[in-house]
Amino acid sequence: MSLLLIAAAAAASPAPKPTLSASEIIAAAPASDWQAIDPADLLVMDLAPDAAGRARRVVIQLMPAPFSQAWVGNVRKLAAAHWWDGTSVYRVQDNWVSQWGDADGEDKAKAKPLPSGLAKVPQEQYVSTALAASSPHGASRDAYAPSTGYYQGWPIGYSAKVTWPVHCYASIGVARDNPPDTGTGAELYAAIGHAPRQLDRNLAVVGRVIEGIQHLSSLPRGPAPMGVYAKPEERTPIIAIHPAHEVPDLPSFEYLSTTSATFGRYAEASANRREPFYVQPAGGIDICNLKVPVRRKP
Amino acid sequence: MSLLLIAAAAAASPAPKPTLSASEIIAAAPASDWQAIDPADLLVMDLAPDAAGRARRVVIQLMPAPFSQAWVGNVRKLAAAHWWDGTSVYRVQDNWVSQWGDADGEDKAKAKPLPSGLAKVPQEQYVSTALAASSPHGASRDAYAPSTGYYQGWPIGYSAKVTWPVHCYASIGVARDNPPDTGTGAELYAAIGHAPRQLDRNLAVVGRVIEGIQHLSSLPRGPAPMGVYAKPEERTPIIAIHPAHEVPDLPSFEYLSTTSATFGRYAEASANRREPFYVQPAGGIDICNLKVPVRRKP
Repeated sequence: MSLLLIAAAAAASPAPKPTLSASEIIAAAPASDWQAIDPADLLVMDLAPDAAGRARRVVIQLMPAPFSQAWVGNVRKLAAAHWWDGTSVYRVQDNWVSQWGDADGEDKAKAKPLPSGLAKVPQEQYVSTALAASSPHGASRDAYAPSTGYYQGWPIGYSAKVTWPVHCYASIGVARDNPPDTGTGAELYAAIGHAPRQLDRNLAVVGRVIEGIQHLSSLPRGPAPMGVYAKPEERTPIIAIHPAHEVPDLPSFEYLSTTSATFGRYAEASANRREPFYVQPAGGIDICNLKVPVRRKP
Repeated sequence: MSLLLIAAAAAASPAPKPTLSASEIIAAAPASDWQAIDPADLLVMDLAPDAAGRARRVVIQLMPAPFSQAWVGNVRKLAAAHWWDGTSVYRVQDNWVSQWGDADGEDKAKAKPLPSGLAKVPQEQYVSTALAASSPHGASRDAYAPSTGYYQGWPIGYSAKVTWPVHCYASIGVARDNPPDTGTGAELYAAIGHAPRQLDRNLAVVGRVIEGIQHLSSLPRGPAPMGVYAKPEERTPIIAIHPAHEVPDLPSFEYLSTTSATFGRYAEASANRREPFYVQPAGGIDICNLKVPVRRKP
């Protein structure tokens, strides 16, 4: 299990004095610094076409072990059963979330039956004890966690005893009712504004959008206080959420290894921007602004 | 000049053991804790109606002294001259900004002439030395500033020597070319994603959207890398940007005083959420998630 500090990654590789910008560093990364994303960890959400008839495809990567795996298992079952097909994005709240699933889920008489065999997950699983010993991780000062870092390409919060996936822009979590409910995974949300970090350790982060987040973030906001649409026709229909193996034309994706020397240099250059546009480098960067580069495999 | 710590504001008022949620604390605030927003500091942006014919109005509050005042003066002149009327929102980049002004501004042959008398502002004015002595300010740990706090209802970064307005969701800044250009204020952007704090001290923050940000944040994203629309017809026309006194039906607005005891309790409750929905309070909150409450005057 390889966990590496941003600072350590930079130090491990005594690079030439950094003059490249963050984007130039990414562009210059050797192929060996890119890690393939297993298509078995991808879901493909096809929304109804937009008003101009253009397709709207959202590609979702599921969270790796040791985080949120019981919910991830439910999400896999729901996708395999095509449970979401014909449901909708029924809630879009500005600077908060777009949420989808069964808009009638709270009405027992009308709710769509769930597949059998979904796990009921205890709230202790919002965090993991499997990685804690390796903290702290050297990222910039954070308001929500004693320290932050990256694990297998994902942003993570660390305390002395536990670790947890953090909510950033485009993170996907499991909606729920009040505790002790923890949600099944049938109702999901994507963060579409400033990172809602107050949700960390309170809801299960099960994935992130790696392509097509704009199809969720640019939807009309619902007029009600929670962003719920007043009328069914305002919802955005979900044609299908497929496991990736059902989508033959899906590209391959890869992410920049967060334990690579390149990532360390990218982090350093992102915190201390030297490109001509900048006058005053910040000297730091928060965990959600230091986005892990993900791309289609060239 | 009244500058008060969040922590100090909470301590100054030995409140009963806090059991109210952040929203309940705001709802219970005495009228005296709300500060009127001077209509002289408001601009009203009317976008073309949406596809369903609904009006799209955006209300902008300008930044108070001592911050960015030379650019704010330019913005006031541009609004008084109705310079933006007939221009457009020509760039919408996901998780970044919506930007407006003269889409042809970079083409000297086609650019719309600017009013005379606009100030050319030196980049030293991205920060202020007028408030620095009162730092630090006791907010949560921040990746971008030694400390953060609030001044007259605005989120501010503090170092030992200078202070500056920070970029949060819905902040409005002055677009510019590479330094030493600092922009005139004719081309403006609103932040529509995770707070782009790396822009702090690098571009002038001149205001914020206090109502209607969804009309800028839910626009279709431009397809080009910077979010610029490929075709003129994809832009969103700006009917007008008015000084508020030209808009007779405009409501009155007010903000929760950031030096009030109520704001201190709101900040504490926002960092340590006790409402039934939460399992694990964060114990902290970042400057951009602790939104200064703004409302229509009841």
